[in-house]
Amino acid sequence: MYSTFETEITIRPDDIDMNNHVHNSKYLDYLLMARYDQMKKDYKIAMEVFVERGYSWVVSDLSIKYKRPILLQDKTVKVRTQIEEFHGASVLVNFWILNSDNDKIAAQGQAGYTMISTQTGRPTRVPKDIVEQYRI
Amino acid sequence: MYSTFETEITIRPDDIDMNNHVHNSKYLDYLLMARYDQMKKDYKIAMEVFVERGYSWVVSDLSIKYKRPILLQDKTVKVRTQIEEFHGASVLVNFWILNSDNDKIAAQGQAGYTMISTQTGRPTRVPKDIVEQYRI
Amino acid sequence: MYSTFETEITIRPDDIDMNNHVHNSKYLDYLLMARYDQMKKDYKIAMEVFVERGYSWVVSDLSIKYKRPILLQDKTVKVRTQIEEFHGASVLVNFWILNSDNDKIAAQGQAGYTMISTQTGRPTRVPKDIVEQYRI
Amino acid sequence: MYSTFETEITIRPDDIDMNNHVHNSKYLDYLLMARYDQMKKDYKIAMEVFVERGYSWVVSDLSIKYKRPILLQDKTVKVRTQIEEFHGASVLVNFWILNSDNDKIAAQGQAGYTMISTQTGRPTRVPKDIVEQYRI
Repeated sequence: MYSTFETEITIRPDDIDMNNHVHNSKYLDYLLMARYDQMKKDYKIAMEVFVERGYSWVVSDLSIKYKRPILLQDKTVKVRTQIEEFHGASVLVNFWILNSDNDKIAAQGQAGYTMISTQTGRPTRVPKDIVEQYRI
Repeated sequence: MYSTFETEITIRPDDIDMNNHVHNSKYLDYLLMARYDQMKKDYKIAMEVFVERGYSWVVSDLSIKYKRPILLQDKTVKVRTQIEEFHGASVLVNFWILNSDNDKIAAQGQAGYTMISTQTGRPTRVPKDIVEQYRI
Repeated sequence: MYSTFETEITIRPDDIDMNNHVHNSKYLDYLLMARYDQMKKDYKIAMEVFVERGYSWVVSDLSIKYKRPILLQDKTVKVRTQIEEFHGASVLVNFWILNSDNDKIAAQGQAGYTMISTQTGRPTRVPKDIVEQYRI
Repeated sequence: MYSTFETEITIRPDDIDMNNHVHNSKYLDYLLMARYDQMKKDYKIAMEVFVERGYSWVVSDLSIKYKRPILLQDKTVKVRTQIEEFHGASVLVNFWILNSDNDKIAAQGQAGYTMISTQTGRPTRVPKDIVEQYRI
């Protein structure tokens, strides 16, 4: 059972669409922001470190349930993520996006990320030391 | 078994992210563009008609598999969608995003849309005449 | 001479373009975010208050000089704005976008906003009480 | 006097903001799209060719007047651009964004681009053969 980490994100006016809600694709951008933040803040291996070591991460699949709209007036959301499992070149991550006021879940889902070698562009098994450091 | 419709979308430079690919959240924007286009072009009930009748559509859930990156050099993608089923206030739609050159699948998935009443903001059963017109 | 106010904005990975910099159009989104924030925090008339009173603001013209790139590694920018003058339905605002680390100017410019009546969609003279409250 | 070239761009639903207009920063993305298209289609030196030769272009300054809103119902805009002058490492470009239906000007402005060496990241004088090919 892995730890859950949290990042608070400020909603920007340009995130709002013609329905006066945060646009559905922006949820994926909030998730990305949260993972970047948590890689550095919580796992202590920032994205830059992966890049220096010749690795990168790509999203390989994603599922999301939209439960409540997010409004500009909500000001911020909290994005919580938790690793579900490592498997070869992949990691599966659960996520929840919450309205900051009331901690109600606005959306939740699961994202699969694949580690690739920046030289070959091909999936590469996540090195043991990284798996160890993420096993928190 | 419902029909599959197709929309061609031009990739814009601002769709490209720091990995030199179309950014993962933009796929959802391409899908939205395709649905708008096909509502008008293929189903002959444009989004404006829904709005005039006091309805709107929101995305309630979405799953997507990213299979191949899309590059700016690809110039366009084709987005194919096909209704899987209607169920109460919801419609389930299969989608495929293809590189236009070679028709290889860059991504595929399924999106659930819920019809809401713009007055109440609550889900509302899709009217029979609309289901009929979409049953192609 | 009007006051200068400041808003700190976190750079998101989706703001970065294929040149590995914050994309040039995102600077306008940062400026918009800052104005919204400062309307509430500093001028004490939030955008919602304008909307309730039947007003809205649109950008009528904008000029910007890009001086230094902004990188994801910069983490945040500071956006400073200062009213230059009110004139009928318009307000002219100077702005500066700074790298938070070193306070160097990444971009600077001037934006003209026009107040419109949400009923008519037409420009409308900024009411005296609003000019007064913004005269700080 | 340089030639004026034109690119038609399809408005996407994600370009629309909470005011039900194309968002003000998207105009810059439309301009960028048009320049990329015209570099290839009209000047016959695509962006890729610049990159292969070790060059890139960055926006150094931009001014824009927003004259009429653009709506999703407008479906497409036309973006016209015309070189005003070359000067050392820079090129100044006039642009107009038009509603496709009626050819009314939605926005117009001027953008300055600077050629940089991708090796040094510094401005570099635009090579003579490129100036020649763009002198149409």
